[in-house]
Amino acid sequence: MRDKGPETEIIRLLKAGPGHVSGQGLSRALNVSRTAVWKHIEALRRSGYTIEASPSKGYRLLGPLPFNGIEVSSLLETEFVGRELFFHDEVVSTNSEAFGLARSGAPEGTVVMADSQTGGKGRLGRKWESPAGLNIYLSVILRPPISPEEAHWLTFVAAVAAAEAISVYCPERPVVKWPNDILINGKKAAGILLEMGSEPERVHFVVMGIGVNVNTTRPMFPDCIKNTATSVREANGAEVDRRALAARLLSSVELWYKIYLAEGTVPILSEWKRYFGFEGKEVRVASFDSTIEGVCLGVDETGALLVREPGGIVRRIVAGDMEAASSRCS
Amino acid sequence: MRDKGPETEIIRLLKAGPGHVSGQGLSRALNVSRTAVWKHIEALRRSGYTIEASPSKGYRLLGPLPFNGIEVSSLLETEFVGRELFFHDEVVSTNSEAFGLARSGAPEGTVVMADSQTGGKGRLGRKWESPAGLNIYLSVILRPPISPEEAHWLTFVAAVAAAEAISVYCPERPVVKWPNDILINGKKAAGILLEMGSEPERVHFVVMGIGVNVNTTRPMFPDCIKNTATSVREANGAEVDRRALAARLLSSVELWYKIYLAEGTVPILSEWKRYFGFEGKEVRVASFDSTIEGVCLGVDETGALLVREPGGIVRRIVAGDMEAASSRCS
Repeated sequence: MRDKGPETEIIRLLKAGPGHVSGQGLSRALNVSRTAVWKHIEALRRSGYTIEASPSKGYRLLGPLPFNGIEVSSLLETEFVGRELFFHDEVVSTNSEAFGLARSGAPEGTVVMADSQTGGKGRLGRKWESPAGLNIYLSVILRPPISPEEAHWLTFVAAVAAAEAISVYCPERPVVKWPNDILINGKKAAGILLEMGSEPERVHFVVMGIGVNVNTTRPMFPDCIKNTATSVREANGAEVDRRALAARLLSSVELWYKIYLAEGTVPILSEWKRYFGFEGKEVRVASFDSTIEGVCLGVDETGALLVREPGGIVRRIVAGDMEAASSRCS
Repeated sequence: MRDKGPETEIIRLLKAGPGHVSGQGLSRALNVSRTAVWKHIEALRRSGYTIEASPSKGYRLLGPLPFNGIEVSSLLETEFVGRELFFHDEVVSTNSEAFGLARSGAPEGTVVMADSQTGGKGRLGRKWESPAGLNIYLSVILRPPISPEEAHWLTFVAAVAAAEAISVYCPERPVVKWPNDILINGKKAAGILLEMGSEPERVHFVVMGIGVNVNTTRPMFPDCIKNTATSVREANGAEVDRRALAARLLSSVELWYKIYLAEGTVPILSEWKRYFGFEGKEVRVASFDSTIEGVCLGVDETGALLVREPGGIVRRIVAGDMEAASSRCS
């Protein structure tokens, strides 16, 4: 569903109220027939709004408001990210959907968002748990004028944006795990999956996928990730408004993306390091077919991870999976 | 059109002849009804075959044979490249088509080939002239276990494969222009467009697009490229069999791709250098927003171009457009 036009306007008018708004009033304001108004009201009900209809008084919007494209759009303060917003109740994967749109020429900033994913994807072909009614799954199409080698910087941009948006709702500071998981209290609260279409010399488009566990509570997580996953709500203690968090996240993405394009990697890496929680700690990194253990020395100016092995040799790792050496992942 | 099954078999039987083959014979051999045989014959005629039908004697294949998937497949000697072959009389772009198939999980080696393209693409968003009845436009889906930074090596693989296949039909040795045009007598005879889908750490798939000007004659080229484009036929002096050249090209792609996967970049670069015709020559390279002129010193072990400027400084160029300093391009 692309949330534009009359339905967005009807919701705006109903919210402006106060009280009931007559069908005739809506018909006049939108310059459409009464039948058209009725069809829009029906469509809005299907997309989750509770709208009371009274023959004498007209229509009235009742709470609670749904999580959909109209609501997220109404809170957006961005210039271009999310200005084209495709919201789905269910989608195989927002990244796959956005990838197809990008191939068809969708403009920079186009966002695909979903209430649930049937085939949510994580990095390196892994699965991302994507139940309905709880979390945020979104993908942003970007068209940076860069080469494929530079695209991993958008992973850092995404990590910084996600950490920043999540931190608004958390008493503790979120921690970034290299390269791009967001942890709260040592457990994964958000993940990032960057995919791109390119020639060897230049990127055609990047799809920046961000999944945030917002309102999942501990008992809801599948057993296999119960000990490694958490949510913003678990940290916050109360249910979190997904619409506000999604809008905040898109604002942060736009901000840090603009900074990256204007000022390059230095401010991105500097901000990223503020959230990085593993410097000086014992870590284990699975990289291709070897595993490296040692003390994490941070990342270098290219974004590669530096690990000092027990023998003293410092290894530079460009791709892999990092974990604290004490933890065990399934 | 995917060229598999009964129609391929009918063509094989008609070619095996000799003379006419009865409808009943075909029906028995294929274990299908006479009606089905008739429908297949009709389909084969639509895809370019001339098949004579005689009520008493049956069917007979008359020349000339068309350029299509059945014919190319019948000449293929590859293990996996082209074993899945989608042939189109007309397509917007074989690369776009193959990219979509790759996204949907098409296996490594899948080929999209077309007799004409309505939106043929060159590198960096340029157009590739793609008239019908003359040339080869094909795209190969590959799934190498590499990172996006390494994908430019498949450009070298493609260039070596195209030069090798074309050289069979040319009295003069084709020349490779960095990074990936194939020249005959200083004019462009083939071009390569590599596109990929990836994460920052790993390539999901590469689409290797190769366009060869096979039978275009000089008067047929649009004015804007008349002085810079040529064809295999122009060098050969006679019309070239596109089916044989296409099959040869796919064999070369498979061979050099296997060598790259097994032995790495050294043999690829070494073979590529045998075709590289600009070492020691004055060249001009447009790279991003600057133009570099000087003597070409070849390429380094990463595939980057080395140019010694008049002042003596050697510049290393990773992306750009090279031309001989004496030539002018429109």
